[in-house]
Amino acid sequence: MKMALRACLRTKPGLTGLLSQLSCSGHAAARRAPALVAQRSSSSTSQKIKVDFDQSSGVAVMHMQSPPVNSLSLEFLTDVCIALEKLEMDKSCRGLVVTSSQPKVFSAGLDILDMYGKSPEHCAEFWKAVQEMWLKFYGSNMITIAAVNGSSPAGGCLLSMTCDYRIMADNPRYSIGLNETKLGIVAPFWFKDTMVNTVGHRATEMALQLGLLYSPAEALKIGLVDQLVHEDQVLTTATETMTKWLAIPDHARQLTKSMMRKPTIDKLAANREVDVNNFVKFITKDSIQKSLGMYLEMLKRRKA
Amino acid sequence: MKMALRACLRTKPGLTGLLSQLSCSGHAAARRAPALVAQRSSSSTSQKIKVDFDQSSGVAVMHMQSPPVNSLSLEFLTDVCIALEKLEMDKSCRGLVVTSSQPKVFSAGLDILDMYGKSPEHCAEFWKAVQEMWLKFYGSNMITIAAVNGSSPAGGCLLSMTCDYRIMADNPRYSIGLNETKLGIVAPFWFKDTMVNTVGHRATEMALQLGLLYSPAEALKIGLVDQLVHEDQVLTTATETMTKWLAIPDHARQLTKSMMRKPTIDKLAANREVDVNNFVKFITKDSIQKSLGMYLEMLKRRKA
Amino acid sequence: MKMALRACLRTKPGLTGLLSQLSCSGHAAARRAPALVAQRSSSSTSQKIKVDFDQSSGVAVMHMQSPPVNSLSLEFLTDVCIALEKLEMDKSCRGLVVTSSQPKVFSAGLDILDMYGKSPEHCAEFWKAVQEMWLKFYGSNMITIAAVNGSSPAGGCLLSMTCDYRIMADNPRYSIGLNETKLGIVAPFWFKDTMVNTVGHRATEMALQLGLLYSPAEALKIGLVDQLVHEDQVLTTATETMTKWLAIPDHARQLTKSMMRKPTIDKLAANREVDVNNFVKFITKDSIQKSLGMYLEMLKRRKA
Repeated sequence: MKMALRACLRTKPGLTGLLSQLSCSGHAAARRAPALVAQRSSSSTSQKIKVDFDQSSGVAVMHMQSPPVNSLSLEFLTDVCIALEKLEMDKSCRGLVVTSSQPKVFSAGLDILDMYGKSPEHCAEFWKAVQEMWLKFYGSNMITIAAVNGSSPAGGCLLSMTCDYRIMADNPRYSIGLNETKLGIVAPFWFKDTMVNTVGHRATEMALQLGLLYSPAEALKIGLVDQLVHEDQVLTTATETMTKWLAIPDHARQLTKSMMRKPTIDKLAANREVDVNNFVKFITKDSIQKSLGMYLEMLKRRKA
Repeated sequence: MKMALRACLRTKPGLTGLLSQLSCSGHAAARRAPALVAQRSSSSTSQKIKVDFDQSSGVAVMHMQSPPVNSLSLEFLTDVCIALEKLEMDKSCRGLVVTSSQPKVFSAGLDILDMYGKSPEHCAEFWKAVQEMWLKFYGSNMITIAAVNGSSPAGGCLLSMTCDYRIMADNPRYSIGLNETKLGIVAPFWFKDTMVNTVGHRATEMALQLGLLYSPAEALKIGLVDQLVHEDQVLTTATETMTKWLAIPDHARQLTKSMMRKPTIDKLAANREVDVNNFVKFITKDSIQKSLGMYLEMLKRRKA
Repeated sequence: MKMALRACLRTKPGLTGLLSQLSCSGHAAARRAPALVAQRSSSSTSQKIKVDFDQSSGVAVMHMQSPPVNSLSLEFLTDVCIALEKLEMDKSCRGLVVTSSQPKVFSAGLDILDMYGKSPEHCAEFWKAVQEMWLKFYGSNMITIAAVNGSSPAGGCLLSMTCDYRIMADNPRYSIGLNETKLGIVAPFWFKDTMVNTVGHRATEMALQLGLLYSPAEALKIGLVDQLVHEDQVLTTATETMTKWLAIPDHARQLTKSMMRKPTIDKLAANREVDVNNFVKFITKDSIQKSLGMYLEMLKRRKA
């Protein structure tokens, strides 16, 4: 079934059809009361994402719970996209908070195991899922708030930057940033565009060249996150903030959001295949594979 | 006569011809001494704009005095544009300070009465005048300084952003910002572009989505205004600031200003009709008219 | 020989061939040990640039020593470009620190004597050299750090802005900025683009219109420089900072740098001739020549 879902991701009508079926049971529950909606509870992938949808407020909370560190694997990205698409299609869902159920980490970013020692075909499929995640989140009609309750490097930082507002735990041991160069790889242009839109050209130039990971305080200073609160308050602050955003008429807010983001989204949307080919060509290079291998070894040693 | 002036606005040569006649009396006076120049004093519209032009310094001060809150109506915008055009053509006028004669308000922004319950033709004429105001101010060869001596929401904020420098009264009861979404309407792309050029992409994204009105202190912090002074000092500070700008050779400053702003101006100049059509189509929607009606009701209740 | 070098500058292959011959002796010395490499010591122009290349660290330091104020003359720019090109081709050179050997000044900017009273042909040749300097520095594959140990107006500011990082002496008597308008001339679009990429649109608009020269503290505040240190520590801090940048894999860093800067570089690269023609047409105007003449007189009087 997983493969089928992935195949669907590529053709929106198909996905829509599938999801509208899938979402039936969940929504039946949701309409009764504010409730925990276990998405596709019959599916083996359901444990990685838990979505609480409060029908009365119109706000969903997406809990990422893919141990140990919410790595954005092909499988997890597929789940995330399906969950997002489902909420997007539900007119009663106006806001989405994204947060982590894993301790100390929001998301560790793209799963290196989906890039290391894999076939070009697998790498291509993986990259399409990364694109899909970005396109869906950055272009979401919903109000999206990242409740960054832990470290958020690389793809984790990207995910948070796609949101409309970022609240981070003020724990100085956490960090956030696009640190790709430190691994010998390069953030693609749409990661870069997203960061430029968030912190400006100069901060992005330095952050990306040096692969900087910022402490919460530093991230606040350059505007990479919007607000710091105590670790215990991240989710409640996100909910309170959402209330302010919900006060704005949806139609006007959505048109405004689209006006701000569409040029950036269109750049990738018009170049997805080229971007996939560039990624696959780059990531399958011997030198890059070697870098990734060394990085994985380092991670293993650190664990041990 | 008012209609004739409006018609002229559409064809620059005609306007120029008309204004060069109109400006004769005023300038004869102006050349004698620094003096109050009552523009087109014979016209019924003259009371809404008072222009003091000090021939010795080359600086004009435009006082907006359209009670109660300097709403940018079709009529008022037409007057403002004619006054600006007149100063623009006068080579001896190098700098312009824009300020308000109304208490507590710089300008309340676009006049909703010109968008509510009006024919598509009227809405189109109104929007052309808004475009004209922006094009003339943002592209002015003069040094333009906004002396923001009161609240400045929506179109009032836009007008101040078209200037080269913004000085605001530090009265915390005043606010400034593009709050269109709060009314259920959407700032068009050139409002957005102007704000991005002023405070950057991220601040604009949040400000426009939430329709934020900033206190003077907040506006200073994000760069929406350049300086805060006591209410009594706004105009004198503007005049002092003007002196610094006047020290720069006009030709070099004008070329530099044009280099900075031309790409943004060209975007609207090349799409005026499309932009008018978009506005008319949007504003005449039942749902939008209903929003505006509710807003007007709310304003009436507040007054009462 | 100087003329030959200049001619070479126009055709990269020729230059490359020439430089690879020229660099032989210098590199033989450099390979032995960290050493002072007197570039083209046989050339009469060698005294204006001293390059110390430390083979063990892979870092070169370019000392500008063109008395009295490192004016960017055609001759000096040619030397600078040749020195940079030489380092660029040396794969063992990964980082470059640019600094001044002249007291109190980093570089006084473009040499007015190459624009005043000169033939259009000379002006064109001069401008091509300015373009070349910018293209080479802004697009350098090396890590470039400006050790701004003195005032850095106009072209001096531009040179520092092409670098990846700027450290300035915290002496309040020094200043930095693009002050062209104060001389009645206009910074071209690629000066503007570089500044927008560094401090954003709004700060650039004001800085360029007013020809602002910033104190070190002000420059830090708007992001025109990245760090202030005591005058004595500028060069050592640059070296320490370089170590952090060297920790990033070259390939990933270079691709990232190119992604950030290529659109800006391409704009000039595609329009060099038009830009040269614009410059020549502007600078040879009687009014502009008169402005430059007055400025030179003022400088002479100040000296006396």
